[in-house]
Amino acid sequence: MFDPDDVVAGGGLLHRRTLLRGGLLALGAGSAAAAQETGIGAGSPASMKTPGAPFSAYGMPSHWRQSIKRSIASPPGRPGTGVSRTPLEFLEGSITPTGLHFERHHNGVPDIDPDKHQLVIHGLVKRPLAFSLDALMRYPMESHVRFVECAGNSGGMVAPQPAQQSAGNIHGLVSCSEWTGVPLSVLLDEAGVDPRAKWMLAEGADAAGMSRSVPLWKGMQDAMIVLYQNGEPLRAENGFPMRLLLPGFQGNINVKWLRRLKLLATPVFTKDETSRYSELMPDGKARIFMLQMGVKSVITRPSLGLTMSGPGVYEISGMAWSGAGRIRKVEVSADGGRSWAEAQLGELNPSKGVARFRLPWAWSGQPATLVSRATDETGAVQPTRKAWLADYAPGQAYHYHALASWGVDAAGKVSHVYAE
Amino acid sequence: MFDPDDVVAGGGLLHRRTLLRGGLLALGAGSAAAAQETGIGAGSPASMKTPGAPFSAYGMPSHWRQSIKRSIASPPGRPGTGVSRTPLEFLEGSITPTGLHFERHHNGVPDIDPDKHQLVIHGLVKRPLAFSLDALMRYPMESHVRFVECAGNSGGMVAPQPAQQSAGNIHGLVSCSEWTGVPLSVLLDEAGVDPRAKWMLAEGADAAGMSRSVPLWKGMQDAMIVLYQNGEPLRAENGFPMRLLLPGFQGNINVKWLRRLKLLATPVFTKDETSRYSELMPDGKARIFMLQMGVKSVITRPSLGLTMSGPGVYEISGMAWSGAGRIRKVEVSADGGRSWAEAQLGELNPSKGVARFRLPWAWSGQPATLVSRATDETGAVQPTRKAWLADYAPGQAYHYHALASWGVDAAGKVSHVYAE
Repeated sequence: MFDPDDVVAGGGLLHRRTLLRGGLLALGAGSAAAAQETGIGAGSPASMKTPGAPFSAYGMPSHWRQSIKRSIASPPGRPGTGVSRTPLEFLEGSITPTGLHFERHHNGVPDIDPDKHQLVIHGLVKRPLAFSLDALMRYPMESHVRFVECAGNSGGMVAPQPAQQSAGNIHGLVSCSEWTGVPLSVLLDEAGVDPRAKWMLAEGADAAGMSRSVPLWKGMQDAMIVLYQNGEPLRAENGFPMRLLLPGFQGNINVKWLRRLKLLATPVFTKDETSRYSELMPDGKARIFMLQMGVKSVITRPSLGLTMSGPGVYEISGMAWSGAGRIRKVEVSADGGRSWAEAQLGELNPSKGVARFRLPWAWSGQPATLVSRATDETGAVQPTRKAWLADYAPGQAYHYHALASWGVDAAGKVSHVYAE
Repeated sequence: MFDPDDVVAGGGLLHRRTLLRGGLLALGAGSAAAAQETGIGAGSPASMKTPGAPFSAYGMPSHWRQSIKRSIASPPGRPGTGVSRTPLEFLEGSITPTGLHFERHHNGVPDIDPDKHQLVIHGLVKRPLAFSLDALMRYPMESHVRFVECAGNSGGMVAPQPAQQSAGNIHGLVSCSEWTGVPLSVLLDEAGVDPRAKWMLAEGADAAGMSRSVPLWKGMQDAMIVLYQNGEPLRAENGFPMRLLLPGFQGNINVKWLRRLKLLATPVFTKDETSRYSELMPDGKARIFMLQMGVKSVITRPSLGLTMSGPGVYEISGMAWSGAGRIRKVEVSADGGRSWAEAQLGELNPSKGVARFRLPWAWSGQPATLVSRATDETGAVQPTRKAWLADYAPGQAYHYHALASWGVDAAGKVSHVYAE
């Protein structure tokens, strides 16, 4: 049971430190059946009677969970162009397993011989330099847990009607990893930055020649040349052998397969920052170089596809992140935004990383509308969908970071709704 | 160049915040060759001229790095018994990629239908309970970055001569993950602990019937029933569908494929805690239930197998961890322990997790002996190998956590040495 005083917001949201006295059993976690000690011996499972499988050199997910995979969206005949999304609704914690990190490619995943690849720093520098992977391995490294989010993530939220899609299919162009590499400032210092330099052209070695203009201040602040992801060398689809990481900046500018940085006095206006990744406003002008991702949150459990099995206590779980720094708090509503309760933040809440939030919820069995609202350490708060839409021209879908909501009907089925 | 004042210990160890003015190029990172801007256009690699590979539903390491795998040691004809080790020398940061998490199995990896598996809590409780996976999914969860280390890790260090093996082959029975699951105290509270209960029998559903006695205080303190590892559902070899996590305790007691916890007044003295995982002392008595892992560190780069390419500045990188809590500091010596310099600790330094340490080193090209020495937040310091050996009977190889050293010869070849 829980103390009635623990109900802190409408629809049955409980205080984040609620002690479930007597446990969830009494509250409707109905599949927890009482066990008799005699049942233990009699019920020895088959797995205890036969030797198990041998060791593996490199592990893969259980065959019972092989349906948890990236969902691929790619135009006909162009298998290397498009996206694959992280199935957020099946994941937990802050770290995204590397095999499920989202992908966005413009002309496929290049196969690069690491011994032949070089990173060149040139342009407005005192001495142009070329770094092999072996050379970079001798430089000072740092490790940081940081998210990467595609500017187009959650773009479907601008549709007039809510798409009946899973959390991953709507919001799964965001992932979070422990990245290890060389601070870019060390390499720029070595090349010697010409005072006229204010921008860098970053170019990938893929067949799209992905190219973006990066403000030099970001390169000096917290940019990294990443060599490792979640402990192991980068994988091909994440930029092997080296990529640029600009923490908190839109995914596309974290150029994968990085081959050069050219220091310049002005931005280049490449195809990748003019034809795409610019934001059209209502007056017909476009925002350009809007690089930092906004404060954002998504409830992943419950979410569409995960049906609830009758009234009782559940845990609401979700992810929050901000391109500006740490998450300060996440509030959750079960009544479509009329009342709010503060969620518990996880131990791991890195700057420009994903924080996990959780809150117990005593669901009465009545229809409910779940919403989450994140605030970051700068005080920035997620806007409502309506307020966000008003800032842009119709159909502009980059940088969506407004509130997202799920509806729960009396049968426990979850659907995608626009709460406001 | 570096300021001579930055040399803080023998053999060329530099202060951990040394600024490499002018960069490593001048210090011998010889493979960083000056680049001409004209070389960029002329040198467009093949990867930019052909569309790349398509998307993948679940990613795997680059084919250029497929030699990075767990090394398996298993007796003839018993493919499910033995260990596989994490290749530490090729990894970075704090998180171990799940596919490379070490394994220790006593009768193979069981294949468990998650919908039929139950965790039973019985014995000295007010009401015995059985929890399905679906039921546990409704309970409050937490996520924590914690190491798991086999009690037998580094056991080869008791050999009279240093084994000429890699860091992973010697010390690779330790890995570190973000684990997500239900605090065990919540489930114990629900079952209602009888005041006579002081221990729990934890039993796995594998064909070894792996069974260990767990002190009840640990179950109430920070134990978890883990359902997720590094964001995704547990894998078979790590305990799918659920395992016990006892942060900082020896690997084996973190029972995988957990099927029951029986509360008892006394320990059981199972085969797995008497025939193994007890520590014989010089007087013929054995230490039992020595569960917490000691404070420990290992330099992973450079280490055996990673040859150095001539004099100059390198970064020394390694891992440190303690079963007692956070790492307070790691010192590094390049002269076999005569002088020490304090390393830089990484941003991620979780309690009972792996901290990464790093230190710049100006290698003169003379023979050197690298040693690391960790201190945890309780003030515990790694002992010398001699001091550690004196505590146990000859050949006792569990819980080795003393100093480990690498020798570097004038040619840059790294070998395993006993420095003291």
